[in-house]
Amino acid sequence: GIELIRASVVGGTGYTGVELLRILASHSEVEVVSVTSRSDAGRPVSSVYPNLRGAVDCLFTQPSPEALIDSDVVFFATPNGTAMRMAPELLRHGVKVIDLAADFRLKDPEVWSQWYGEEHACPDLLAEAVYGLPEVNRSAIRTASLIACPGCYPTAVQLALLPLLKEHLIDTRVVADVKSGVSGAGRKAEIPVMMSETGESFKAYSASRHRHWPEIVQGLRGFSGRDVQLTFIPHLVPMIRGIHATVYCQPATEIPDLQSLFERYYFDEPYVDVLPTGSHPDTRNVRGSNRCQIAVHRPEGSPHIVVLAVIDNLVKGAAGQAVQNMNLMFGLRETTGIPILGLYP
Amino acid sequence: GIELIRASVVGGTGYTGVELLRILASHSEVEVVSVTSRSDAGRPVSSVYPNLRGAVDCLFTQPSPEALIDSDVVFFATPNGTAMRMAPELLRHGVKVIDLAADFRLKDPEVWSQWYGEEHACPDLLAEAVYGLPEVNRSAIRTASLIACPGCYPTAVQLALLPLLKEHLIDTRVVADVKSGVSGAGRKAEIPVMMSETGESFKAYSASRHRHWPEIVQGLRGFSGRDVQLTFIPHLVPMIRGIHATVYCQPATEIPDLQSLFERYYFDEPYVDVLPTGSHPDTRNVRGSNRCQIAVHRPEGSPHIVVLAVIDNLVKGAAGQAVQNMNLMFGLRETTGIPILGLYP
Amino acid sequence: GIELIRASVVGGTGYTGVELLRILASHSEVEVVSVTSRSDAGRPVSSVYPNLRGAVDCLFTQPSPEALIDSDVVFFATPNGTAMRMAPELLRHGVKVIDLAADFRLKDPEVWSQWYGEEHACPDLLAEAVYGLPEVNRSAIRTASLIACPGCYPTAVQLALLPLLKEHLIDTRVVADVKSGVSGAGRKAEIPVMMSETGESFKAYSASRHRHWPEIVQGLRGFSGRDVQLTFIPHLVPMIRGIHATVYCQPATEIPDLQSLFERYYFDEPYVDVLPTGSHPDTRNVRGSNRCQIAVHRPEGSPHIVVLAVIDNLVKGAAGQAVQNMNLMFGLRETTGIPILGLYP
Amino acid sequence: GIELIRASVVGGTGYTGVELLRILASHSEVEVVSVTSRSDAGRPVSSVYPNLRGAVDCLFTQPSPEALIDSDVVFFATPNGTAMRMAPELLRHGVKVIDLAADFRLKDPEVWSQWYGEEHACPDLLAEAVYGLPEVNRSAIRTASLIACPGCYPTAVQLALLPLLKEHLIDTRVVADVKSGVSGAGRKAEIPVMMSETGESFKAYSASRHRHWPEIVQGLRGFSGRDVQLTFIPHLVPMIRGIHATVYCQPATEIPDLQSLFERYYFDEPYVDVLPTGSHPDTRNVRGSNRCQIAVHRPEGSPHIVVLAVIDNLVKGAAGQAVQNMNLMFGLRETTGIPILGLYP
Repeated sequence: GIELIRASVVGGTGYTGVELLRILASHSEVEVVSVTSRSDAGRPVSSVYPNLRGAVDCLFTQPSPEALIDSDVVFFATPNGTAMRMAPELLRHGVKVIDLAADFRLKDPEVWSQWYGEEHACPDLLAEAVYGLPEVNRSAIRTASLIACPGCYPTAVQLALLPLLKEHLIDTRVVADVKSGVSGAGRKAEIPVMMSETGESFKAYSASRHRHWPEIVQGLRGFSGRDVQLTFIPHLVPMIRGIHATVYCQPATEIPDLQSLFERYYFDEPYVDVLPTGSHPDTRNVRGSNRCQIAVHRPEGSPHIVVLAVIDNLVKGAAGQAVQNMNLMFGLRETTGIPILGLYP
Repeated sequence: GIELIRASVVGGTGYTGVELLRILASHSEVEVVSVTSRSDAGRPVSSVYPNLRGAVDCLFTQPSPEALIDSDVVFFATPNGTAMRMAPELLRHGVKVIDLAADFRLKDPEVWSQWYGEEHACPDLLAEAVYGLPEVNRSAIRTASLIACPGCYPTAVQLALLPLLKEHLIDTRVVADVKSGVSGAGRKAEIPVMMSETGESFKAYSASRHRHWPEIVQGLRGFSGRDVQLTFIPHLVPMIRGIHATVYCQPATEIPDLQSLFERYYFDEPYVDVLPTGSHPDTRNVRGSNRCQIAVHRPEGSPHIVVLAVIDNLVKGAAGQAVQNMNLMFGLRETTGIPILGLYP
Repeated sequence: GIELIRASVVGGTGYTGVELLRILASHSEVEVVSVTSRSDAGRPVSSVYPNLRGAVDCLFTQPSPEALIDSDVVFFATPNGTAMRMAPELLRHGVKVIDLAADFRLKDPEVWSQWYGEEHACPDLLAEAVYGLPEVNRSAIRTASLIACPGCYPTAVQLALLPLLKEHLIDTRVVADVKSGVSGAGRKAEIPVMMSETGESFKAYSASRHRHWPEIVQGLRGFSGRDVQLTFIPHLVPMIRGIHATVYCQPATEIPDLQSLFERYYFDEPYVDVLPTGSHPDTRNVRGSNRCQIAVHRPEGSPHIVVLAVIDNLVKGAAGQAVQNMNLMFGLRETTGIPILGLYP
Repeated sequence: GIELIRASVVGGTGYTGVELLRILASHSEVEVVSVTSRSDAGRPVSSVYPNLRGAVDCLFTQPSPEALIDSDVVFFATPNGTAMRMAPELLRHGVKVIDLAADFRLKDPEVWSQWYGEEHACPDLLAEAVYGLPEVNRSAIRTASLIACPGCYPTAVQLALLPLLKEHLIDTRVVADVKSGVSGAGRKAEIPVMMSETGESFKAYSASRHRHWPEIVQGLRGFSGRDVQLTFIPHLVPMIRGIHATVYCQPATEIPDLQSLFERYYFDEPYVDVLPTGSHPDTRNVRGSNRCQIAVHRPEGSPHIVVLAVIDNLVKGAAGQAVQNMNLMFGLRETTGIPILGLYP
């Protein structure tokens, strides 16, 4: 008989949590054994998420390492600062850990504490953790026990720049003007994410400083081997799902065919889709999908290369990528159980 | 007795037309004498625009120079290519002309025909026309007979850069990442502006070439006296009104206090509002208002100055700015009858 | 010299508060002397509401009867239960009180406490308070000291039914299927009004019991003199402003011309606009306006009369109607300073 | 070896077409052999629908009976009036036909032509066609060759009333106040479905007469055996997907436990989900799902039973239900390949 992977989700009441449950519930090789939530412990998951009725019919439980140790893999869909407190014990018991939050994304504990405002609880694990961007780290992911899933913006921006930076084709000054739907802010009752505040309006936020900046810089420097200088401005779009990155860079050299450079680079990637010349990727086409769609432009009269990249922040930017990592870690086909067709319209 | 200004609106069925009527209907010094529309001639204006019931109760008429000659001022809220065919005769009869479309925005007829795809019908008037951005051309506007109202994106981008470029404080390579609500596309039944296509989605468009590029470049070069190189990428936001420009440039020199530079530069401007340090302007706060709200940032770790500017594309980006020009042309107080308080939420 | 009306707003940080300030700031006969807010005391009003910059430049203050006594009129844009604690002292000092919340809407103190969950603090004032629906109570409003502004749903439903019930033309069983934008829920950080929860979705709420039910029933029984039975189901629309009431009733008698019945009934009303036969009122056309637009239908094959009525919940449903009441109470022209043209698109 | 069902889609460029392709592309027992479109013939399907890239990589072709005859089943996702011209020949060749439009929904050819404005092309087939609402007609569907898929509103309203009418528990006067997202209007470039027109607004439409009225009446009379009188008012919601029906009826008799009546009635139905007492179904929870979620209320002080029912108009209201019918017709498990978990948020 086939053994299912026993998976637990810690922090199942957030948006990445419910999306993870939606994907895992349809995944042929996975059995969800527990879903924890401090705030909703004791309630049926489906009373909070009626979209999951009939598929996820357990109760939310209190998170405790003891209960989770019985899993093969534990996903943390928690606020920052939770996974780093529970991961060491789980790893010690042979449980694989996939963190969808930021606890293991930065390699340098000092940088981490500077951006996240507290000491890191297990700085030694930062070195061991693998940054879960399969397009960059696929082989390391396969053998990892601890995965730091990339942030949503970092996923889009890195995929936009990977072929150009890896092949040293551009200058190291890069502008990433990024836009996100409001689900990126999570499921917390705060005034700025009320519909009356964000509906029918558009604004930048955290323009002077955003936590995804050091994560992206670390990634770009990592795969380019150069001292990339990044300007990164996030914006809030009056929609629920979707990220659009508009990335500006300047060629360091003559690039004869940008389009085929991108097409060749991503030819074998199941979740990076380079659109035809002249295209404009639209977040709606990746709604509910794990796909990143990319187009590259050379605007008339401009010194810049402009790369446009879209993802669903909750899928390729969070839950879908987490399951992609899990598939790799457990030796499954990488695409098993992960939605690829966007829900349009 | 006080003589009212006799105003006509050509092309009253578009969104800039209805917004112009909304403003003119409440303007104490104006009488609307005719509203034309090829497509809706013979219908009551208020049957197309029930929001104007009781305030604009005339019928749409066929546009004809003869009928318009009896006006003091004619606004063209028409597609590109209409005003240039009717303006010469109106001007000859002493009627002032304010074009909200693009017919008189570019000074060079060859550049114009290259971007608008036909010969210009009255190239000699291009020199005479005054570009109606009061923050740049106020005194010329006061004595003008023919005004070319700036495009919506050009208004936002130029106001974002004016203090920096005029005082030669930045390099001449500039990136303008701009975002617009869908009303900017006008009131034409086309698939890409259907709600099922644009709602809950975000995308760039015309990334390789957009008609506002030469207009902005002309403006920036004009007030900087330098060969500014502009990269300009427009995006469509799933909302109705509002433009947000995110402008990236690099300091050419030490700028001791960016914030007070902007505050001083715009101190006397009734419709440019520099927000306090650290602010993020939000399009909702200028909804229905003629105001441009601006904030300036120096992001941590970035070589760039980032200027954020918002306007309502139909007001400061079109109808409100047109009336601001009219007020100046007719010697009225500049702010007469123009809404300034945004409709929030 | 002309004396301005000295107005204070208690609870200025909610959506009805900011809308009241927007209207009062442009009102030629009013001076805003204080704006209170427990949560934001000490902050500039315009830091919370940048749309009001330059027009409302005071600070929020702590609410205290002593400070408010110096006003001619005090508006309560507070949660339920606040006005009833402060109104008695203000009235004793000759200050007029206009409550936008529910404290004085129900005549019967027992019914009030049954629906609002506490004892009424000044039951004797319930009799004195005038229900501020000018289309029903105009002359009483003129001499009132204490106004209970109608709820948003009750305004729309009562205006839809007034001509029919007043003239005893329909049966007393009535269905009101009502829909509201999310600003009706106020500016409180709660999960159900997050954009990720309400955007792109539609639902009924409080289907078994809603506080506007007894208010509407009291009103309908009041002007019909009959025992009206009301079924009332509210719904949440993924938009910010606007209420749409769809009201179903059955004719008790032959009604020869429904359309002219409505047109005649509301002929002199400045803020009730009966649309032409066959129309469908659209909330966008009254966005930012104090107008109620109404249409009446006799669907083919149906035993029902269907009345469609739209208002802006923050204007005719709250702040605009409050100022309409103030104008009446102070002997001004009823329409002074109240916006009538909707912001479309 | 397993033989796949050879399926063709006629009219693949509409929203029901693309949704059908999304579902069929993931259906384990189906092979899509052709996708036709008059307007887009010759273009790759995925150039119109980039969400389907990699999954549906054929070209749109011209529709012709000859080419379709080679299919096992042909879905018509066309405008009304197309299927009735092509179905007879397909049926003659043994091809099963599933029409998602209205050509075969009404049994009486005279009623059909009265509501659809032309003679029916094959009135004899009206009797043969099976109305594809599995909850009513499951066994007839299993043996049918020609299916008339129910309209989106009719699906929601009939499922809301089925348990009550079938068991004769209510009076025959029924009000259905229904609300739909804009994708229900199809993918046609028309002004009323532009985002600037429908975004941030709510209205009723076709209040006096709508084509779904006779279809619903036929269905309700069919399963109740009584002369049901229906008042039916559709509304347009500023969202893309989703239908919410609010249905009002009066008990004809004492009904001891409404909740368990509904729960029992739908106990075995895979796609009707009766929510717990006191629930309010939300269209977001069925986004992308074939599920109908239902709640039933007895509002305080009201003579009515109120049933709330939500579906995704493109899934249970169109493409999903079509595939549910196909599964039944071909002897597959009814739920094969049909999404059930809604995409939330």
